[in-house]
Amino acid sequence: MESSIADHLRLERIRHTRKGEDFKPPYPSFSARFDPAVTRVVMAYYGLQFQGAMPPSATEAVRELHSAAELVDGPVYRDQARYTDEAGYETIINILYWTDSDAHQRWSANISDWTAPERYTPDVGFFTEIITPTVDRFETLFSSDRMEGIGAVGQLSGEIREHAYWGGARDRFPLAQVDPMHPHGQLEVSADGHLVRVSGQDNLCLIRSGQDWSETADDERGMYLDDVEPTLHAGMDFLRDDGLPIGCVANRYLQIVDDDGRAQEKTFGMSWWHSLQDLETWSESHPTHLAIFRAAMKYLSTMGPAAKLRLYHEVTVVQAAQQQFTYLGCHDRTGLLRQTQLPTA
Amino acid sequence: MESSIADHLRLERIRHTRKGEDFKPPYPSFSARFDPAVTRVVMAYYGLQFQGAMPPSATEAVRELHSAAELVDGPVYRDQARYTDEAGYETIINILYWTDSDAHQRWSANISDWTAPERYTPDVGFFTEIITPTVDRFETLFSSDRMEGIGAVGQLSGEIREHAYWGGARDRFPLAQVDPMHPHGQLEVSADGHLVRVSGQDNLCLIRSGQDWSETADDERGMYLDDVEPTLHAGMDFLRDDGLPIGCVANRYLQIVDDDGRAQEKTFGMSWWHSLQDLETWSESHPTHLAIFRAAMKYLSTMGPAAKLRLYHEVTVVQAAQQQFTYLGCHDRTGLLRQTQLPTA
Repeated sequence: MESSIADHLRLERIRHTRKGEDFKPPYPSFSARFDPAVTRVVMAYYGLQFQGAMPPSATEAVRELHSAAELVDGPVYRDQARYTDEAGYETIINILYWTDSDAHQRWSANISDWTAPERYTPDVGFFTEIITPTVDRFETLFSSDRMEGIGAVGQLSGEIREHAYWGGARDRFPLAQVDPMHPHGQLEVSADGHLVRVSGQDNLCLIRSGQDWSETADDERGMYLDDVEPTLHAGMDFLRDDGLPIGCVANRYLQIVDDDGRAQEKTFGMSWWHSLQDLETWSESHPTHLAIFRAAMKYLSTMGPAAKLRLYHEVTVVQAAQQQFTYLGCHDRTGLLRQTQLPTA
Repeated sequence: MESSIADHLRLERIRHTRKGEDFKPPYPSFSARFDPAVTRVVMAYYGLQFQGAMPPSATEAVRELHSAAELVDGPVYRDQARYTDEAGYETIINILYWTDSDAHQRWSANISDWTAPERYTPDVGFFTEIITPTVDRFETLFSSDRMEGIGAVGQLSGEIREHAYWGGARDRFPLAQVDPMHPHGQLEVSADGHLVRVSGQDNLCLIRSGQDWSETADDERGMYLDDVEPTLHAGMDFLRDDGLPIGCVANRYLQIVDDDGRAQEKTFGMSWWHSLQDLETWSESHPTHLAIFRAAMKYLSTMGPAAKLRLYHEVTVVQAAQQQFTYLGCHDRTGLLRQTQLPTA
C-alpha cells in the first residue's frame, strides 16, 4: 500500500488526510505516476457544435486537428468524444494531452487557431477549454491497470491508500498537503465580436470521470447497463440541468468515439466546478451520486480485481492563469458560458 | 451560522475541518451547549438482562435504581430503554447522565453497587457501561430543539456549520481541533468470579443515535415507518451481527420505555467502536448507512424545520481511564464482552 502522492511531490503536511495510515480500502485502486521531470501538463479540450447533420466545415476542422495532432510537438495522447447537449446541439470534443507545456505552445503556434475569428460561420460553434495545471494540481484514480486521460501517458502506481472514502480525491492532491484550494475571484466573460473569452477564477475545478464496459459480459454487463448506467445518467442530467446553483458550472456526459466517429463502449462525465469543495459536497450528499458510489462500492468490493468494468477519473484544480477558455459562435449555454446564467449576487 | 464547538472550547486548530467556512448545510442542525463550568460529564448505562418473564430481582433492582436516581447528587437526566438481544435475552438499560462527575462519585458511593458480586443470581445479568468524558471528548447533533441524552441538560446552540457531510462528527469534536483521536491499546477482559471487567483501550468510541417519530403523522409517519425504519433496522442488525471485524465492538438498537415499561415512539442505536475512524468508515461506505443518510438528506432537505421526525446523536471518544465496564453473570456476547470473540491477532 502506498500513497497516491508520488515521493517527489511529498511535502511536510500542514493539512492532514481524512483517514489515518491504518485505513484499509475495501478494494484496490491506483494512480498515475509521472516522471519527476514533468512539472506541468496540458489538458486541452477542442470542441465544436452544430445542429442536424455535421456541416462540411466541422468535418474538415476535425480532420485537420487529427492531422495536426501527428505533427512534431503534438499531444502525447488524445481521444475524441461526442454528445448532444441540452439545447440539441451535437458536440464533438477532441481531448489532447501534453506532459510538456512548452511543446503545446510550440505546437499551437504552428497550427490553425481553433477559435480564430475568421473561422466564424453560423453553422458551427468552436471552443477550446484548455488548462495547464502544475503536477501538484491534479490527481488520478484508476480501478485497473488500463489508464485513460492524462494517466495514459504515465505509469501505474501500486495500490494506493487514499481512496474508497469521501474526501479521498482531496487527499490525493499533492497541493492539498498544504493548501485548502479555496476558490478566489470569479469567472468573467468578455466578448470580442463572435469570440467570447472566459477566465479569472482561481482554483476552478475540472473532473473527467469515466467508465469502460467494453470487456464486461453476462451479469456484469447487465449490472452496469441496467443498474449503474441509468443512475449515473440521472446524476449527469441533474448536474447538466440543475448544477449551477450548487457550483457545477457545466456538465457534459460524453461517449468516446474513434476517429471515424464510431461509438466505443466508454463514456465519461466532464464537469467544471466552482471549487473542489462544491464537487465534494455534491458527490457525498446528492442522492444520484450516493447511489452511484453505493453501487460502485458494492460492486468493486464484491468483484475486486476480477471486475471487467473499468473506472477512472482525473480531477484538476487550476489557477486563473492556467485557464484558456474561448468560444466562437457557440450558444450561450456552452461550457463555461453557462456561468453567465448565474444571477449576479 | 455558528460552530458546533463552543467558544470556550475553541483552540488554535492544527487539524482543519473538512468543509470551509463557506459551506452551507442544506438543512439546519444544532448542538448542545453547556456551562463553561462543566468540564466532565458522566454517561452511565446501567443494564440488566434475563430470559423469559422479568424475574422479581430484576424488577426490584430497576425500581431501586429509579428511586436512587432521585437522591441527592443523582443524575441530572435519565431515560430507560429495552431491547431483545441476538441471544434472546431481554435487556433493560437505564441511562443516567451527570454534568458533575464528583456528584456521580458521591452518589455511587451511597447506593447499592449495580454489579456487586453478592448480587449474583443465575436469573439476571447486571452490567454497567459508564464513561466519564471531558467536554472536549464528545459532540452532539440535533435536528430540532427537542434535545435528548446529555443534550437534555444543555442549551441549544444556533444553527451549526459542521454537519450534513461525512466527517461532520469529527469536526464537531473540540479535541479534534488538535488530535486525530487514534485508538491505542486494546480492550482487556478480566474475570473475578462472576464479575467480569473490561477496559484498557484509549480513544474507544460510543455513539448514541436516536429518532423520535411520536409527533409524525400521515405521509411523514408512513415515510419513517415504511422507508426509513426498515433501512435503519437492517443497518443496526448488520452492526450487531457482523460489526466486529469492521470495528463495531457492540451494537444495540433500543426502544425507549417509560418507568412503567411502556414503549415510547423513540428508538436509538447505541454502539461501541474501536475508533471514531471505524465508525466514520462504516457510516460513509456501508450500503445500509448510505441508504439511511440518503433518506435523511432527502427528507430533511425537503421538510426542513417542518419535519416532525426528530433525530439526534451524541458521539464520545474516551480514554481508558474514563471507562468503567463491569458485567456480572452476563452472557459472553453482552456489550463489550463481545471483544473477546475477536480472533487474537
